[in-house]
Order: sequence, then C-alpha cells, then structure tokens
Amino acid sequence: MESFRLTLEYDGRDFAGWQVQAAGQRTVQGEVEAALQRISGLSIRVHGAGRTDAGVHAEGQVASFEAQLALPCERLGPALNALLPRDLAVRECRSAPPGFHARFDARGKLYRYQIWNSSVRSPLREGRWHRVGAPLDLGAMRAAAGQLVGQHDFASFAAQGGLAPGDSSVRTLRQLRVEEGAARGEIQVLAEAPGFLRHMVRNLAGTLIEVGRGRFRPEEMAARSS
Amino acid sequence: MESFRLTLEYDGRDFAGWQVQAAGQRTVQGEVEAALQRISGLSIRVHGAGRTDAGVHAEGQVASFEAQLALPCERLGPALNALLPRDLAVRECRSAPPGFHARFDARGKLYRYQIWNSSVRSPLREGRWHRVGAPLDLGAMRAAAGQLVGQHDFASFAAQGGLAPGDSSVRTLRQLRVEEGAARGEIQVLAEAPGFLRHMVRNLAGTLIEVGRGRFRPEEMAARSS
Repeated sequence: MESFRLTLEYDGRDFAGWQVQAAGQRTVQGEVEAALQRISGLSIRVHGAGRTDAGVHAEGQVASFEAQLALPCERLGPALNALLPRDLAVRECRSAPPGFHARFDARGKLYRYQIWNSSVRSPLREGRWHRVGAPLDLGAMRAAAGQLVGQHDFASFAAQGGLAPGDSSVRTLRQLRVEEGAARGEIQVLAEAPGFLRHMVRNLAGTLIEVGRGRFRPEEMAARSS
Repeated sequence: MESFRLTLEYDGRDFAGWQVQAAGQRTVQGEVEAALQRISGLSIRVHGAGRTDAGVHAEGQVASFEAQLALPCERLGPALNALLPRDLAVRECRSAPPGFHARFDARGKLYRYQIWNSSVRSPLREGRWHRVGAPLDLGAMRAAAGQLVGQHDFASFAAQGGLAPGDSSVRTLRQLRVEEGAARGEIQVLAEAPGFLRHMVRNLAGTLIEVGRGRFRPEEMAARSS
C-alpha cells in the first residue's frame, strides 16, 4: 500500500461538513472518496486532519489515504480536480511515509473565524463573514483571548453531547488572536492548537464576541475554561 | 423633488448586470427600483455611475435618483436593506445637491480585475477571480499597461457594436496598474478613468494577460490603442 497526502481547498457553504453522514448529505469526504473510486475502481477511506462543520471553508485541509494506485501524484491531482465539483479542489498531492494519517499525525491546526463588524450587511462577505452589528471592544476581546491561551479544560466550549464518556476535554491553545482585517469593520479571530473539541472554535469566537459587546468581562474567561 | 445618493455593494454573480433589460432578467437597477417602489409606491428611475456587466461585483457603486419621499436617508437605507436580496445592499444613503446624477457627475471610476495565476483552480476564489494557468510575465504586463495610460482612442478595446455612430472612443486612462495580491498567484489589474467604453476593462485585462503569456509584446500596445 502507498500513502498519499492531499491538501484540499473548499468552499464549505454547500457541504454538510467534512464527514460522511447519513445518505443524501453532501460532504467533502464523500466527494473525494467518490472521485477516487471513479479513478481507481476502489473504495478508499480518506481521513481529514480536521472534521470541519457545515459551512466551514478550508484553504489547506490535509487529508490522507492508503491505496495501491496505478498513477503517481503528478497525475492523480489533476485527475481528481477534473472530477471534483467547483467548490472543492486538490491544491497539492504528495506521497507520504507509510502509515501517514492526516488526523493522528497532525502537528497543529489553524482556524480563522471572520467577523464583519458593521451595522450594514455586506453582500461580498456573505457566507464568509459573520456579521455583528453592535460595536466591539477589541481591547476586551484581546484580554479575554489572552486568558484562554494555554492548557485548559475547554468542556464549556465543546458541543453539547460532543464528548464521549471518558474523553478528555483538556486542550492546549497555542494561539488565540484577535486581529483587524484590511478593510474597516473586518475582525479575524485566529485559533491554533494541536487539536480542538467539536464546535470549540465557533464557541471561542462566540464568547469573544460576547466579551466585545460587554456581556462578559475578560476576567470571567479563566473561570469558564477551567 | 429631492436628490438621493446611494452607495451600493453587490455580488454580481446572479445579476444580468446593472441595467434593466428584457423582462425576466434580474438586474441591480431593477432590484433597487423594485424596493423603492415597495417603500414609496412610486415608480422611480435609479441611475448608476457605471453600468456594470453580468458577473461584475461592486464594492461601492454610486447610484442616484430624484423623488419626493416621506422618509429621510437614515431610515431609507435600512428600509431598502430589509427588502433587498442578500447579494445586494445599500452601504450608504446620502441626500445630494439638486439635479445630482451618478453617471454624469461621476469624477472617476476604479475597476479591479482579479487574476488567479495558478495551474490549480481555487474554489474559494470561484466567481471572483479569473484563472490563468500559464505563467505570467508581470514585468511585460506592467510595461504594456504603461503604454496604455493616458488619452487614447480605445476603439479596439470596446465591445463589438458597443459604440453608436458618432460616439467618441477616446478615453483617458488615469491609472492602469498590475499588482500582486496578498497570496501567491493573486494578480490584480487596477484601471481608473473618468469613463470607460463598454467591455473596455475586461478587454484591457484580457490584453494584458496575452502580453503576460508572451503572445503580444508590450511595444505593440501603443499601436493597438491609437
């Protein structure tokens, strides 16, 4: 068996997330596996570094699979792109060391949560930016983000029912930054960690927004994450 | 009669351009006029500074109209945004001097033509960036752009049949710049002028791409524009 490493880009708007779910749900994993099957005739399981939720986009999602294929990466990438839909593409295909697994071998993941802070909606940011009409206090958001960096129990930031019994909800946030974008009103929350709990990124961003609106104080963050 | 000045943002993907056309065609002008009619009960003609083509987006298209309305701009803007579709919004509403006309009073227009220069398509740039797979020589493109700046007869860059008999095809390009974007592979052509001929921006960009691919030499530009 050979190991392959794909770097995927996708617009998550019309996907029910990464992971293959109930029949009829369009997923990124499902589309990649279908294209691989059309090329190889084989049923191949593809693993993503992160199991992104519905509506989440990817600039560089790493995925891996093992198979005995007749064609090398230089030809597999273009062949996949010819079959994949417009909202999904293979940016890069590389051969990987034996046993490489995109999720278990991931060293870190970087998520960007985009906030459009304006009283007026922006058609060109539709589906990419989350609009917040109320003014946001960036200083308070940054102070709160600082409290959350490091190793903590993030159970209160996980999806309800997202943790199996016995699973640890301790994670290590290497970075949590609040940055202003190129245009006035653009705010980006950057979160980096070796791994995240389910819905953790959106819940972190949502909490920072509440802090920015003055509904929580930055000092309350430590309590919420421990 | 009062004069109003709207600044519009739209995603041009699902519009057949700015201008009201044959019945059944969805246009920006048509949507704004329909929303104004629902608010005021009046049939009001809205003029755009530029009559953008199908698929062209706008960050700040200025539009104007005259009417006797019961409500001031502070309320008209939000009222329009509540009625307008997701891909179209009023960024700003201002009252304007009597007789203000967005097109005739325009001092200049700035267009940005976005090129994704990569052998691989980019789902997140789909509908916003024009992909060119072949390598582009930016130096040659910039030299050609320099030849086109200034006052010239741009007839060869106009839409076929786009000029009425007796219309001048002389225009003054104040700026034509070729810039690299934030990400590797992003190239933007910026064109600024008091006015453009129909299809002139896309034809300028298309010609610069041909120069970048080595199909025309920059020195040939002067001949093409005079």
